[in-house]
Amino acid sequence: MIQFRPILFALGLILCTIAAAMVLPAVVDVADGHEDWRVFFTSAVATFFIGGLLILVAYEDQPAPLGIKEGFLLTTLCWVTVAAFAAAPFAGLGLGFADAYFEAMSGLTTTGSTVLTQLDQLPRGILLWRAILQGLGGIGIILTAIIMLPFLRVGGMQLFQMESSDKSEKVLPRAIELTLAIAGVYVGLIVACIAVYMALGMTPFDAICHGLSTVSTAGFSTHDESFGFFRSPALEWACVLFMILGALPFVVYVKAMRNHPEALWRDTQVRGFLMFLIGLWLIMTFWLITARGLEPTTALRMSAFNLTSIMTTTGYASSDYMQWGPFAVGLFFLVTFIGGCAGSSAGGIKIYRLQVTALLTRSHFVHLMSPNRVVTLVYNGKRLPADVPFSVVAFLTIYMSTVGIFTVVLSAMGLDFVTAMSSSAQAIGNVGPGLGDIVGPAGNFSSLPAAAKWVLSFAMLLGRLELFTVLVLFRIEFWRG
Amino acid sequence: MIQFRPILFALGLILCTIAAAMVLPAVVDVADGHEDWRVFFTSAVATFFIGGLLILVAYEDQPAPLGIKEGFLLTTLCWVTVAAFAAAPFAGLGLGFADAYFEAMSGLTTTGSTVLTQLDQLPRGILLWRAILQGLGGIGIILTAIIMLPFLRVGGMQLFQMESSDKSEKVLPRAIELTLAIAGVYVGLIVACIAVYMALGMTPFDAICHGLSTVSTAGFSTHDESFGFFRSPALEWACVLFMILGALPFVVYVKAMRNHPEALWRDTQVRGFLMFLIGLWLIMTFWLITARGLEPTTALRMSAFNLTSIMTTTGYASSDYMQWGPFAVGLFFLVTFIGGCAGSSAGGIKIYRLQVTALLTRSHFVHLMSPNRVVTLVYNGKRLPADVPFSVVAFLTIYMSTVGIFTVVLSAMGLDFVTAMSSSAQAIGNVGPGLGDIVGPAGNFSSLPAAAKWVLSFAMLLGRLELFTVLVLFRIEFWRG
Repeated sequence: MIQFRPILFALGLILCTIAAAMVLPAVVDVADGHEDWRVFFTSAVATFFIGGLLILVAYEDQPAPLGIKEGFLLTTLCWVTVAAFAAAPFAGLGLGFADAYFEAMSGLTTTGSTVLTQLDQLPRGILLWRAILQGLGGIGIILTAIIMLPFLRVGGMQLFQMESSDKSEKVLPRAIELTLAIAGVYVGLIVACIAVYMALGMTPFDAICHGLSTVSTAGFSTHDESFGFFRSPALEWACVLFMILGALPFVVYVKAMRNHPEALWRDTQVRGFLMFLIGLWLIMTFWLITARGLEPTTALRMSAFNLTSIMTTTGYASSDYMQWGPFAVGLFFLVTFIGGCAGSSAGGIKIYRLQVTALLTRSHFVHLMSPNRVVTLVYNGKRLPADVPFSVVAFLTIYMSTVGIFTVVLSAMGLDFVTAMSSSAQAIGNVGPGLGDIVGPAGNFSSLPAAAKWVLSFAMLLGRLELFTVLVLFRIEFWRG
Repeated sequence: MIQFRPILFALGLILCTIAAAMVLPAVVDVADGHEDWRVFFTSAVATFFIGGLLILVAYEDQPAPLGIKEGFLLTTLCWVTVAAFAAAPFAGLGLGFADAYFEAMSGLTTTGSTVLTQLDQLPRGILLWRAILQGLGGIGIILTAIIMLPFLRVGGMQLFQMESSDKSEKVLPRAIELTLAIAGVYVGLIVACIAVYMALGMTPFDAICHGLSTVSTAGFSTHDESFGFFRSPALEWACVLFMILGALPFVVYVKAMRNHPEALWRDTQVRGFLMFLIGLWLIMTFWLITARGLEPTTALRMSAFNLTSIMTTTGYASSDYMQWGPFAVGLFFLVTFIGGCAGSSAGGIKIYRLQVTALLTRSHFVHLMSPNRVVTLVYNGKRLPADVPFSVVAFLTIYMSTVGIFTVVLSAMGLDFVTAMSSSAQAIGNVGPGLGDIVGPAGNFSSLPAAAKWVLSFAMLLGRLELFTVLVLFRIEFWRG
């Protein structure tokens, strides 16, 4: 029997948080003397009312510990419901419900695809709301990835279980303490990012919105030109730094601050991520210099900014890389799949899964040449738990199949092949831009049919919760006994 | 120490076979009074000379049994070398070496991509040579898949080992006997196909060429319009039947003829293949009727022909499905990956791998919901051998990564994104046509840069030999100790 009470109770708490967050854009609109504050305020009241009701109804003196099924259900239900409430202000401000839900889901999943146009003319309340959704979504997924997904053993995330074999390696003894530490790091990074952006010339409002959007690797901008609006190499490099910081595993920061500064550069995932990223920078820089005749410094900055943006699944654009020639287009498409580190707000397949797969492939080659040799798989200095390899490859298989199926579904809705495939891949990877005129870095999702927006909202949800968390709910066995 | 003598001896035997085959187009050209016979005859003599030399040099009274490393080396070396000799006549007839090698590799791997244009005007010798290459390549890969790959345990092919656990299931006791039975079935199917094609109105020459090309699921035609040239629904349906027969596991035919006719419809792979294929037919027929307004019978025939052609990795076209709208394009791209049954001449990922992956995924869902339950994986009525699941997913991972890497490499050579990705996917799957104007069903590979032709030739080889057989040779460990 699935226990619904603790699920509804937790959902109530989260809705109240969202309600509180809605007050902020209302305050900004009041200060700006803009009518929109009514919509935010009404949404806040309604959300708070329903959240409070859930808390009252579902409160238990002695709640049962959360089981596995409750964990799956809670995680999925949270994202779906919160997106619906977060969409209310957008709907109140005149967006159709498909658009409003898409925009909210895109923010909360830190994807950063938008259906809003003429951002520069929008009142600040709605721009701030988009930024806040990304901020909340970012910390939401980091905590989910660090606490919930390892417990649910989704896609190999059990590798990051806190209470794993080696007790001395425990980062912090209790989940609450860890949550606070992680949240502290997250807020600290955002504040630092905002400060740097302001120091380099952004207005305070732009700095706040982009700070929230950078560290959460999400990618909403307050300008139609995205980050290209600022035309500032210094700001772009600062952004590169904070996108990278947002895509590293947050547990490692906590470890590093707790007297283990070496944790940062000893972590296999961090190393892999940086090596991969810098390798890509160099390849693309070389290409831009030789094939497109750019200045070396410009080439490096453009490569670094746009590749980091896609690989960390942020999705800012500083220029339309669809114009860089077929090689760039192909490479950007491939990078859409990679993603950042597990335990960050970045999406995609994620570095550790690629590393585990590389380990497996190498051991498979050994097995092919000498069938009787036994190979021990060691990752990050420890033996891989027995069920991790298979969880990882099952994840990869489902990931690629899902991209394929969504491509066909979106094609059936009339999207051309490149738009369908790239928007499917970017949505599942929570990246933001795809390829082509419509969903590419210079495009906008508003012209897509409503059905495609629903499909993409679902794809973003699937990708954000590492597929299995959602898909398991579609199995009959889940609802039986 | 790798034993080179048996490898060279086997290679010599195969080259002599190829040399003998070269005499046939020479004879046809002599009969037609066409100059080309000199090229074929010279090539035959040279090939026979080198093949004979290898046999003489490498002959051993008591050859050592073939080890695993020798198996990998022999298999890869055969395809690479035979393609080089098979390319000689094309080069002699005026093609550049990249084109000649591409065409030969495309034939031998039963891919069916062509760089030749104005086929209808070509002398019959060269057309016959292309057909023969496909015929030889087809039986070559069937025997490789049935005898060599299970021995090498490549990509889960150990599932099809003859001397597996259950002795009573042995199809035929010895490899030679099995080889003869398989070759008998193969030749029988080709003869039947030729007879049916002639009965339905093809000229004898067209029937022979298309018979060789259909049963080997290869796809070279003698006409620029491919199978669409004949404008005959009856011929198209006949072709559908023989493409399907060419894509079923040949061991099952042998079993069926040896007093086990039920083997055909009890085989899990055969059932899966047919259900998958017919499901696709119905979806596409529905789409063509509703979205494109076609007559039901026309819609069914067009769907059946083109989907069967791509899924069996034959690659004939009866019409340009690039014009069927985005949904069709998306679906055809996805079908490019599926492929036929293992133990046939079809390429692609292959049905049993998709079935094993589906089994694994299902068991993973059970594992997610109840971590302590043990699930036994049963395939085709038998427990899956322990190392098959991992071999299969390792194969899938490498397959998808290879498609991705080749996409980027081809992009760097200036191919647009869709052309690069679809030609990479089709070459690795040995399908034939990709998407777009150049490599699509109505296109031609001749305009690609020479470098891209070499890359695609390598991709066809990789895909044909199930990736690992070739890739293992690039590991340092292979050449050590």
